Amino acid sequence: GKKRKVPARKRLSSGIPALDEMMGGGIPEGDSLLIAGASGTGKSLLATQFIAAGIRAGEPGIVAVFEERPDEYAGRASIFGLDLETPIRDGTLEVIYLRPLDLSVDEMMQELLDAVKRTDAKRLVIDSLAGFEMALAPGFRADFRESLYRMIFALTGLGITILSTLEMEESFTEFRFSTYSISFLTDDIIRLRYVEIDGQLRKIMMVVKMRGAAHSPDIREYEITADGVTIGERLANY
Amino acid sequence: GKKRKVPARKRLSSGIPALDEMMGGGIPEGDSLLIAGASGTGKSLLATQFIAAGIRAGEPGIVAVFEERPDEYAGRASIFGLDLETPIRDGTLEVIYLRPLDLSVDEMMQELLDAVKRTDAKRLVIDSLAGFEMALAPGFRADFRESLYRMIFALTGLGITILSTLEMEESFTEFRFSTYSISFLTDDIIRLRYVEIDGQLRKIMMVVKMRGAAHSPDIREYEITADGVTIGERLANY
Amino acid sequence: GKKRKVPARKRLSSGIPALDEMMGGGIPEGDSLLIAGASGTGKSLLATQFIAAGIRAGEPGIVAVFEERPDEYAGRASIFGLDLETPIRDGTLEVIYLRPLDLSVDEMMQELLDAVKRTDAKRLVIDSLAGFEMALAPGFRADFRESLYRMIFALTGLGITILSTLEMEESFTEFRFSTYSISFLTDDIIRLRYVEIDGQLRKIMMVVKMRGAAHSPDIREYEITADGVTIGERLANY
Amino acid sequence: GKKRKVPARKRLSSGIPALDEMMGGGIPEGDSLLIAGASGTGKSLLATQFIAAGIRAGEPGIVAVFEERPDEYAGRASIFGLDLETPIRDGTLEVIYLRPLDLSVDEMMQELLDAVKRTDAKRLVIDSLAGFEMALAPGFRADFRESLYRMIFALTGLGITILSTLEMEESFTEFRFSTYSISFLTDDIIRLRYVEIDGQLRKIMMVVKMRGAAHSPDIREYEITADGVTIGERLANY
Amino acid sequence: GKKRKVPARKRLSSGIPALDEMMGGGIPEGDSLLIAGASGTGKSLLATQFIAAGIRAGEPGIVAVFEERPDEYAGRASIFGLDLETPIRDGTLEVIYLRPLDLSVDEMMQELLDAVKRTDAKRLVIDSLAGFEMALAPGFRADFRESLYRMIFALTGLGITILSTLEMEESFTEFRFSTYSISFLTDDIIRLRYVEIDGQLRKIMMVVKMRGAAHSPDIREYEITADGVTIGERLANY
Amino acid sequence: GKKRKVPARKRLSSGIPALDEMMGGGIPEGDSLLIAGASGTGKSLLATQFIAAGIRAGEPGIVAVFEERPDEYAGRASIFGLDLETPIRDGTLEVIYLRPLDLSVDEMMQELLDAVKRTDAKRLVIDSLAGFEMALAPGFRADFRESLYRMIFALTGLGITILSTLEMEESFTEFRFSTYSISFLTDDIIRLRYVEIDGQLRKIMMVVKMRGAAHSPDIREYEITADGVTIGERLANY
Ligand SMILES: Nc1ncnc2c1ncn2[C@@H]1O[C@H](COP(=O)(O)OP(=O)(O)O)[C@@H](O)[C@H]1O
Ligand SMILES: Nc1ncnc2c1ncn2[C@@H]1O[C@H](COP(=O)(O)OP(=O)(O)O)[C@@H](O)[C@H]1O
Ligand SMILES: Nc1ncnc2c1ncn2[C@@H]1O[C@H](COP(=O)(O)OP(=O)(O)O)[C@@H](O)[C@H]1O
Ligand SMILES: Nc1ncnc2c1ncn2[C@@H]1O[C@H](COP(=O)(O)OP(=O)(O)O)[C@@H](O)[C@H]1O
Ligand SMILES: Nc1ncnc2c1ncn2[C@@H]1O[C@H](COP(=O)(O)OP(=O)(O)O)[C@@H](O)[C@H]1O
Ligand SMILES: Nc1ncnc2c1ncn2[C@@H]1O[C@H](COP(=O)(O)OP(=O)(O)O)[C@@H](O)[C@H]1O
Ligand SMILES: [Mg+2]
Ligand SMILES: [Mg+2]
Ligand SMILES: [Mg+2]
Ligand SMILES: [Mg+2]
Ligand SMILES: [Mg+2]
Ligand SMILES: [Mg+2]
Repeated sequence: GKKRKVPARKRLSSGIPALDEMMGGGIPEGDSLLIAGASGTGKSLLATQFIAAGIRAGEPGIVAVFEERPDEYAGRASIFGLDLETPIRDGTLEVIYLRPLDLSVDEMMQELLDAVKRTDAKRLVIDSLAGFEMALAPGFRADFRESLYRMIFALTGLGITILSTLEMEESFTEFRFSTYSISFLTDDIIRLRYVEIDGQLRKIMMVVKMRGAAHSPDIREYEITADGVTIGERLANY
Repeated sequence: GKKRKVPARKRLSSGIPALDEMMGGGIPEGDSLLIAGASGTGKSLLATQFIAAGIRAGEPGIVAVFEERPDEYAGRASIFGLDLETPIRDGTLEVIYLRPLDLSVDEMMQELLDAVKRTDAKRLVIDSLAGFEMALAPGFRADFRESLYRMIFALTGLGITILSTLEMEESFTEFRFSTYSISFLTDDIIRLRYVEIDGQLRKIMMVVKMRGAAHSPDIREYEITADGVTIGERLANY
Repeated sequence: GKKRKVPARKRLSSGIPALDEMMGGGIPEGDSLLIAGASGTGKSLLATQFIAAGIRAGEPGIVAVFEERPDEYAGRASIFGLDLETPIRDGTLEVIYLRPLDLSVDEMMQELLDAVKRTDAKRLVIDSLAGFEMALAPGFRADFRESLYRMIFALTGLGITILSTLEMEESFTEFRFSTYSISFLTDDIIRLRYVEIDGQLRKIMMVVKMRGAAHSPDIREYEITADGVTIGERLANY
Repeated sequence: GKKRKVPARKRLSSGIPALDEMMGGGIPEGDSLLIAGASGTGKSLLATQFIAAGIRAGEPGIVAVFEERPDEYAGRASIFGLDLETPIRDGTLEVIYLRPLDLSVDEMMQELLDAVKRTDAKRLVIDSLAGFEMALAPGFRADFRESLYRMIFALTGLGITILSTLEMEESFTEFRFSTYSISFLTDDIIRLRYVEIDGQLRKIMMVVKMRGAAHSPDIREYEITADGVTIGERLANY
Repeated sequence: GKKRKVPARKRLSSGIPALDEMMGGGIPEGDSLLIAGASGTGKSLLATQFIAAGIRAGEPGIVAVFEERPDEYAGRASIFGLDLETPIRDGTLEVIYLRPLDLSVDEMMQELLDAVKRTDAKRLVIDSLAGFEMALAPGFRADFRESLYRMIFALTGLGITILSTLEMEESFTEFRFSTYSISFLTDDIIRLRYVEIDGQLRKIMMVVKMRGAAHSPDIREYEITADGVTIGERLANY
Repeated sequence: GKKRKVPARKRLSSGIPALDEMMGGGIPEGDSLLIAGASGTGKSLLATQFIAAGIRAGEPGIVAVFEERPDEYAGRASIFGLDLETPIRDGTLEVIYLRPLDLSVDEMMQELLDAVKRTDAKRLVIDSLAGFEMALAPGFRADFRESLYRMIFALTGLGITILSTLEMEESFTEFRFSTYSISFLTDDIIRLRYVEIDGQLRKIMMVVKMRGAAHSPDIREYEITADGVTIGERLANY
């Protein structure tokens, strides 16, 4: 029928085959993807694996970090066997450090756009949205949502795929989707959560939304090892 | 008796036969329908199916979007086998992009009324109410509720049927009807929710309210596939 | 003994015999009755049945609506077999439409008092309190509680029985009496709630308070059909 | 031993023998007693029974009401077989109506003190604290807590026993003691609550605190009948 | 080993042997102890027993009260067989009444320090912290935390042991440690709670913290009788 | 493979072997570690054990305290057999007392940097973050997050390992990760919690996050004895 004619959009690998599979083949090119979860769930690691996968695929990248020291970024990645030093030297990867209180929205935008031009970036990581907000000079924070929206809109309009991280409050007994106020920024949402099982703090992952594509409904446990995020079985009954 | 004499209002198809049936035959013409649910529950898809069903029925439409790029709108619809490109070319469908911070209430209203005249629209989609709010210049947001009310009132008064989407916070253990502040805007309410069943993030739908008509009390599971929203069985015991 | 000597106050029928019975014979004349519940629980329908019952009993009425179009009011009522067109023509029923942002408290009050005189009203419906608040020009909203109190006090002082509706947030697992801030306005309170039973969104009703009279403690399921609100069995064990 | 020497303070009957018993013999003279509960739990009725019991015991009283019409007060009491008309005529009972927005703190205080002198009152009812707050002109509300405290302090200092009512939000699944901010005003606290048992909205009562005396720890069900509050069994297992 | 050499700090009796035992021998001299619980849990009684135990041990004391009349303080104590009149006459006990809105922080501090000098106090009770806050003139409340901190710091620096009470909101199903904002003021925390057992409102006590000492982890039921607080068994399974 | 080549960062002992083991060998040098828990869970003790372990390992330290008297700090440590007096005399340990309202951010920073130089500190304790905030003069508090961030960034940049404590509200039935707003300050997070088991208030510990390293997922019970924190078994089923 008709629906077969639409050319499927190119998919980008997240760097984690099982997650690509949950997303029906990877992240649609040009999408804005949100990784939401509490501290320590592995948001930054997922972001790093995403950017490294891009490098491996010949897709230059930019990482805007706030919480990390830029000079340590490549080092931390190497712990997981991800070589970011070579692309940084090559100029196919730039790690931009967002300092608090420093920039107007336009300066921030310009800095990112300049980096995009320099590297011909296809992937952008914003780790994290809270850091991004704090990097704005206080007078610009009121417009944070709008600014962010415009920036994401402009960059995805250039075909760049964006992965942002969002720190969420979390309780174990109750779990809220408090992504409300930023949902309009995202095409795709991945949710990371803690669960207490058997006297251990374990982690589960689910794809909550993909704007234009099918995805798995499964809630799967995952671990973080020296090989990065390792996705396990569907969480049968907890 | 007497009650048989009232002429039943015309019903518009939602584009999903099982949902029409849950609504007792479709959406009453001239109603303001609200689709409320968390990110990824399929609100935008339902809105697209509604507008496409209108086109098929010879009812021109307008889609006011904020989260999407207007140029991609037809493309995303085509994934589900819905042809919106032809009516856009025909002038029987207009996709209006609401930019943040741009408009006064009157300008917004005028823009929509102009589009209604141009297309002779019978259906209007506002996707989403939050986007609509952000599209207003900040000075107009305080009056958002009143403005929205007046606009919906004016348009439904012209016989246009309106479907709006509302992003809701959601927890899995507790579920609130937080539609309070906008309930006066709506004749009909459809609620979409996530439930965790068997290690999967599944979705359920219910018609919560129809102002002037009977509807099914059933809470039914649904899936989103390449054919759009597919409504399944009543949720027996979860 | 002594207590037998007090003349029982006249009771007004709610239009629903089973509800009258739950209230120990109907609504005490001159009371201010509150119907509280989430969207779609049938508050407006109860209000319409109350006003129609008054007409049948020769008690003229006034309906102050905000959410509805006044010209559609009689039409919606007729769906349930309730003829409001005749009394509107007769002048024994007036439907007053409260527009947002329009009125000072005194103008609002005057408008209602004039209507009371014209119709010699015995029953008044305010559907809804939120609508009433929005109808006030913004400068008057701070005094909303006091204004409302004075108005209800003045009107019930004339022997008029008032039914107001209150939209409430609702969760399924937890249920709050958040009527706090308006309880001083009401002599009688009826609470409508959703419950999820067997994969259906069902409705229950209870009389929470009657200031001067006994009432049933029962929590009863009810349905809305073409005959209006139909009250069923006491909710045994859910 | 020593502790036997303290002369037990005189106790005032609440008008309900079983409640007097729960309180270890009644309300200690000169105490400030708080009745806290949701709408319809019977706070006002308890207040009326308290004042009527005073009259029967030769203790003149004052009732400061806000929610009721003063002229109806005696009438409502008579429903429960309580004769307040005679003492009103006698001048041993005064019902003071607190109008919203009317008074400064000092005027309010003076009005009550004058009434105390006129009637030689031994009992005072404030029904309700929210009404009391609204009766103050807006400029005085910021100091509400302090004003109330001073007034209660002054009156109990004269040996008058005060019963105040407090409307509380309530959910069925969770129950909060939100009396925090007014606890310093009260010597004794009685808590009224709804519970859902067997498809009925039932009521339970407990004495939460008595500043200088023993009281029963029992949580007891009660009903309101034409004879007033009737306290039943201890709530075994719900 | 080394740790045996530290001279154990002197312990002060709380006046309740079982509580002293739970605290590993009593309250460490010079500590700031917090008693936190809902209305009626016995905070004021514990404070009185603490001060009376001091008198018996030859340790003069000061009680800063807000909720009580100072002239009734000794009377209420005598109900529990505690003689406070003799030490008040002796000058080894002073009851200071904190009036609302009266004092600057410095005046308050001076008043307490003067009393400390006059009585050579070793124990101080602040009943309650909310009362203390209200006693400050409004302009000083913003600095309440800092003021309180400085005062407690100054007084414990003089070797005085302080017992403060804190009224807490409480629900039965959920229990929060909302002592957050004042925890920096306290060396030791005792928590009093209500539990519903068997249709009764019962009370439990636990030592939550002692800054420099071991304490029992037990959650124990207690009663209040004419002999004061009587601590019972560990709460086995509720 | 590649990942073996990264030189593992040096680990610092927490002073508690079982915790070092849970953290995969201790705290990575130069990290910012957060200890979050309610009052009395042992945050300050963990901080003291951390600083004492540093002294034993030849790593000078600084302790910035707010809640404690600096002169008592060594005394309290000695209770647990930890000798802090010798290093204080040696000049390898400094205890800095943060007074409320006293300092600008720059002064605070300078004071800490001076102390770092004097002692050649390798470890820093901030006990607690709330105390740190209160130590700032009010005009500087708005920028607290940014100031703290900059300070931590500067100090860890010098290779200093920082342990901060965070007081958290806690309920027993629900547990929130409300570390949100400070998560960007921390590389590693340890969570301490109360649980009610068997009529006792017991304590559990878990490593929630380590930015660059593996850690145990176990939730383990622990006790505080005269030997300090003693970590027990994994919490099997509660
Ligand atoms: N081609 C497709 N096949 C199957 N499912 C799809 C497809 N496209 C989108 N979806 C589903 O639709 C969801 C998004 O629906 P959408 O209407 O954008 O949600 P909302 O507007 O409520 O955030 C996705 O999460 C995905 O599960
Ligand atoms: N003709 C009808 N037949 C059966 N049910 C109806 C009919 N008309 C309305 N209803 C029911 O009444 C509900 C709306 O009642 P309404 O009084 O408008 O609710 P509320 O004012 O509480 O939001 C609808 O959700 C629908 O279930
Ligand atoms: N004559 C009566 N017979 C039986 N019950 C009555 C009678 N009058 C009032 N009640 C009961 O008393 C309740 C109202 O009590 P009230 O003291 O006004 O409550 P509150 O002040 O707590 O809102 C009603 O909800 C009703 O159940
Ligand atoms: N003489 C007494 N005999 C028995 N119990 C008493 C006596 N006096 C007071 N109580 C109990 O003590 C409680 C009040 O204690 P109090 O210390 O005032 O509480 P709080 O200060 O926490 O509000 C009362 O609720 C009552 O149960
Ligand atoms: N000598 C000791 N022996 C046993 N336990 C102790 C000793 N000293 C303190 N504790 C325990 O340590 C707890 C206080 O720890 P602390 O580190 O001050 O807590 P926090 O800083 O989290 O409020 C006390 O509640 C007590 O249980
Ligand atoms: N080398 C490693 N081996 C195993 N697990 C690691 C390693 N490095 C980090 N982790 C895990 O990754 C988690 C941190 O992930 P991170 O991406 O920083 O979380 P977030 O950004 O969500 O706060 C740590 O809590 C730890 O469990
Ligand atoms: Mg991160
Ligand atoms: Mg959408
Ligand atoms: Mg309605
Ligand atoms: Mg009342
Ligand atoms: Mg007290
Ligand atoms: Mg501490």
